[in-house]
Amino acid sequence: MFPKNTWYVACTPDEIDAKPLGRTICNEPIVFFRGEQGKVAAVEDFCPHRGAPLSLGFVRDGQLVCGYHGLEMGCDGKCSSMPGQRVRGFPSIRAYPVVERYGFIWVWTGDAELADPADIPVLHWAESDEWAYGGGLYHVGCDYRLMIDNLMDLTHETYVHASSIGQPEIEEAAPETTVDGTEVITSRHMENISAPPFWQAALRGNNLADDVPVDRWQICRFTPPSHVMIEVGVAHAGRGGYDAPAEYKASSIVVDFITPETDTSIWYFWGMARNFNPGDQALTDRIREGQGQIFAEDLEMLEAQQRNLLAYPERRLLKLNIDGGGVQARRIIDRLLDAERQASADIAS
Amino acid sequence: MFPKNTWYVACTPDEIDAKPLGRTICNEPIVFFRGEQGKVAAVEDFCPHRGAPLSLGFVRDGQLVCGYHGLEMGCDGKCSSMPGQRVRGFPSIRAYPVVERYGFIWVWTGDAELADPADIPVLHWAESDEWAYGGGLYHVGCDYRLMIDNLMDLTHETYVHASSIGQPEIEEAAPETTVDGTEVITSRHMENISAPPFWQAALRGNNLADDVPVDRWQICRFTPPSHVMIEVGVAHAGRGGYDAPAEYKASSIVVDFITPETDTSIWYFWGMARNFNPGDQALTDRIREGQGQIFAEDLEMLEAQQRNLLAYPERRLLKLNIDGGGVQARRIIDRLLDAERQASADIAS
Amino acid sequence: MFPKNTWYVACTPDEIDAKPLGRTICNEPIVFFRGEQGKVAAVEDFCPHRGAPLSLGFVRDGQLVCGYHGLEMGCDGKCSSMPGQRVRGFPSIRAYPVVERYGFIWVWTGDAELADPADIPVLHWAESDEWAYGGGLYHVGCDYRLMIDNLMDLTHETYVHASSIGQPEIEEAAPETTVDGTEVITSRHMENISAPPFWQAALRGNNLADDVPVDRWQICRFTPPSHVMIEVGVAHAGRGGYDAPAEYKASSIVVDFITPETDTSIWYFWGMARNFNPGDQALTDRIREGQGQIFAEDLEMLEAQQRNLLAYPERRLLKLNIDGGGVQARRIIDRLLDAERQASADIAS
Repeated sequence: MFPKNTWYVACTPDEIDAKPLGRTICNEPIVFFRGEQGKVAAVEDFCPHRGAPLSLGFVRDGQLVCGYHGLEMGCDGKCSSMPGQRVRGFPSIRAYPVVERYGFIWVWTGDAELADPADIPVLHWAESDEWAYGGGLYHVGCDYRLMIDNLMDLTHETYVHASSIGQPEIEEAAPETTVDGTEVITSRHMENISAPPFWQAALRGNNLADDVPVDRWQICRFTPPSHVMIEVGVAHAGRGGYDAPAEYKASSIVVDFITPETDTSIWYFWGMARNFNPGDQALTDRIREGQGQIFAEDLEMLEAQQRNLLAYPERRLLKLNIDGGGVQARRIIDRLLDAERQASADIAS
Repeated sequence: MFPKNTWYVACTPDEIDAKPLGRTICNEPIVFFRGEQGKVAAVEDFCPHRGAPLSLGFVRDGQLVCGYHGLEMGCDGKCSSMPGQRVRGFPSIRAYPVVERYGFIWVWTGDAELADPADIPVLHWAESDEWAYGGGLYHVGCDYRLMIDNLMDLTHETYVHASSIGQPEIEEAAPETTVDGTEVITSRHMENISAPPFWQAALRGNNLADDVPVDRWQICRFTPPSHVMIEVGVAHAGRGGYDAPAEYKASSIVVDFITPETDTSIWYFWGMARNFNPGDQALTDRIREGQGQIFAEDLEMLEAQQRNLLAYPERRLLKLNIDGGGVQARRIIDRLLDAERQASADIAS
Repeated sequence: MFPKNTWYVACTPDEIDAKPLGRTICNEPIVFFRGEQGKVAAVEDFCPHRGAPLSLGFVRDGQLVCGYHGLEMGCDGKCSSMPGQRVRGFPSIRAYPVVERYGFIWVWTGDAELADPADIPVLHWAESDEWAYGGGLYHVGCDYRLMIDNLMDLTHETYVHASSIGQPEIEEAAPETTVDGTEVITSRHMENISAPPFWQAALRGNNLADDVPVDRWQICRFTPPSHVMIEVGVAHAGRGGYDAPAEYKASSIVVDFITPETDTSIWYFWGMARNFNPGDQALTDRIREGQGQIFAEDLEMLEAQQRNLLAYPERRLLKLNIDGGGVQARRIIDRLLDAERQASADIAS
């Protein structure tokens, strides 16, 4: 139950530089590799000869060579050659539209004719020297929508991340959720509070006093199919909060690409983009390490939640004010799913 | 297939003193915790907000706080509060009758209206200074009835526990099984034999000669749903055996509470109560360690037996004389199951 | 889907010398042990008393004693005695025809009345002082026919075993497949090539120059149900190749007995028989170690192939010229399966 006619983040370039990568996305086993001129390619991870995974093979002259008997697969899913064989009549396998952009490999899992790279979301921070990015990848055993819920309702920080970014003021500040087309925005502003440890460190990283009251904000933006960008930051109190001049604040964007692996598991690409001290690689590394620890705290909870939901499939969950962001995001996903089902039905009829 | 309108041992107090304990009993995920005034409580391990396991949370002011978003659950399964929310209309979750008694937490998994703490079996040894108790908990992958069979037929000691409590004389002495209401008693008496290693140690622990002939007894008592208490002991031969004066014997009660987790797994609370040298904690520890090793020997056999029975569901097993205790116990369990089914049918009709 | 009226290799003698061995073959749990006079026996791994696996027991006076309550099972599957019980009416369990021959234990998994030890394949190398044998056992998660395919098409050596026995000339030499009754032979001859590392070592082991051109051959012989013997070797080039005199060549037989455990797993008995320097045990050990490493390289590929085929059950694989050996072997297996089905139908009608 995930939209297919859309771009998902499949992997990062370093994962395919040395050898092909086999990865299941939206229940489909796919092999990603660098084909001719190093251009990224993606085909089914299934050799048409005897069914071996092509991801156990290697790339030679831009062709993907099966590691079992040497069938050579082109980037288009057509067999290009095989030792001692004529391959003209060989069946093809599916090739997936794939684009390398912004430091990620994006894959289109639906109808290839509909794939338009212009639909990949614009990530301005990924192309600017004024920004730095660090991130990682987690495999999590939960429905992708549970992770969207998690990220669109940050009150969980008070409980799950009590020692790093959580603080009671989060749950005391009511969030506001709005919908703009297919974008869902949940924002929360806290004024004149103490900065929690993570943000004290960020203030120091930006050469700002870390022991004075701050205004803090969290603006979560969901866009389909399952991307969540969160503007987060603190400013010295009374300087305008979110709108304060750069010299009074430390802010960044929490980046979350949530790619379904199966119905109950995801590839979770997380990271943080910041526009202060972008050249400080040591700072980037420290932030990534801290964020990685914080985000790992969610995994146990999400996987336990998933197991409970599978055990009680008939239970209806609550939809509170704090859940508004996740609820609206699911409505948009449901609309996309309905549209895809309708399109399939139209073709069939 | 286990009686539900009955008291099972769920855990020991030390398991819930520091934090909530999630444990599945009779196929139901339950969280046990200390609520108001430290009184034990048990509710479904499912937060009505988003389905997270409440056992990942913590207790605050006698309320169970969900570790995801802070919903507070009362001991009665009613939500008592939640940050920034009105909770009046929140759905409740199931609360289980639960009693702390005799050093165990007992849970009633059936109709709460029928739960009467007076039905918890009386354990005189647990309340007397003249007795000492030590025990442990094993998780075993078998139907609870296979463990009852095991304990009601101690001829297996000769084979499974050959190096500790087994001896050929056990299988040479025919057991006698009687039924008294819902209690099944299988007893075996051996006269003028050598004491096996475990009992030699017990004689020494009671300051008795360990190298003289003894009379030995084993009196297994099953009571529903799945408790087995076994009076065991040795007396210097010719002093009256089971009825010998205390100064000639070492005896104790093997304590077994068998709590179904699922259809094919159990929580096995085992221990030994003795009325000699009750103040000798080092002796208690030694006995517990020895018993723990002996009882661990059963696990491999029981789990392998369970796998075999699942692979051959159609095979009928033998019911020999030595199996009489287990066979009678199953008849009583079947009567209870029938009665519960009949009660459900009466309500439905 | 495996022939049952046939002999499979079940284990090697060392596996049952110290204690009984429980092993599932063709989906049937069987216990192998040494009965009276040390003669090998095999019965169902299921005690008719309470269903415990007999393989957890021990052998006493040629009888298999259940390790739970001491039931004694004869080699014929009839209970011979039990402590304190009359066993006359006890149900029997199935006994399997079993033969120890050529350093292997062979089991017949079908109709016992049809079992004829004369049908065990003749292994001349196993009975001659002029030959040495070394081998091992791997458990592999794949259909037994995938391993037959693997062994009947050695072009995979170029890819899977590139660093040891693979070389490009293999795939350049077209194989020839012939069928002779129920035997399938796929042969490949390469002339005037360099010897790959494994064969260089074999030449040295046979006191032959390893740096001169060689002729190389591979003659794969499949016989039902799933045995593959491969004559392999190299001779100094121009000396007659396969037919060269012994002083110019190093040759051996790759021995493969593939025994189904379940539909998707096998016990794979692999080894090598050689007729040069048969008395050199150190050489035998070195060859076994090298072969073990090479054959381990196949496991990942075969298990990944199996998972892919299970994920795409509807896909039809290619049958190329190189696949001829495997394709013909499957035809013979299918004929045997049809014959067994027909025989069952005749009995039923």
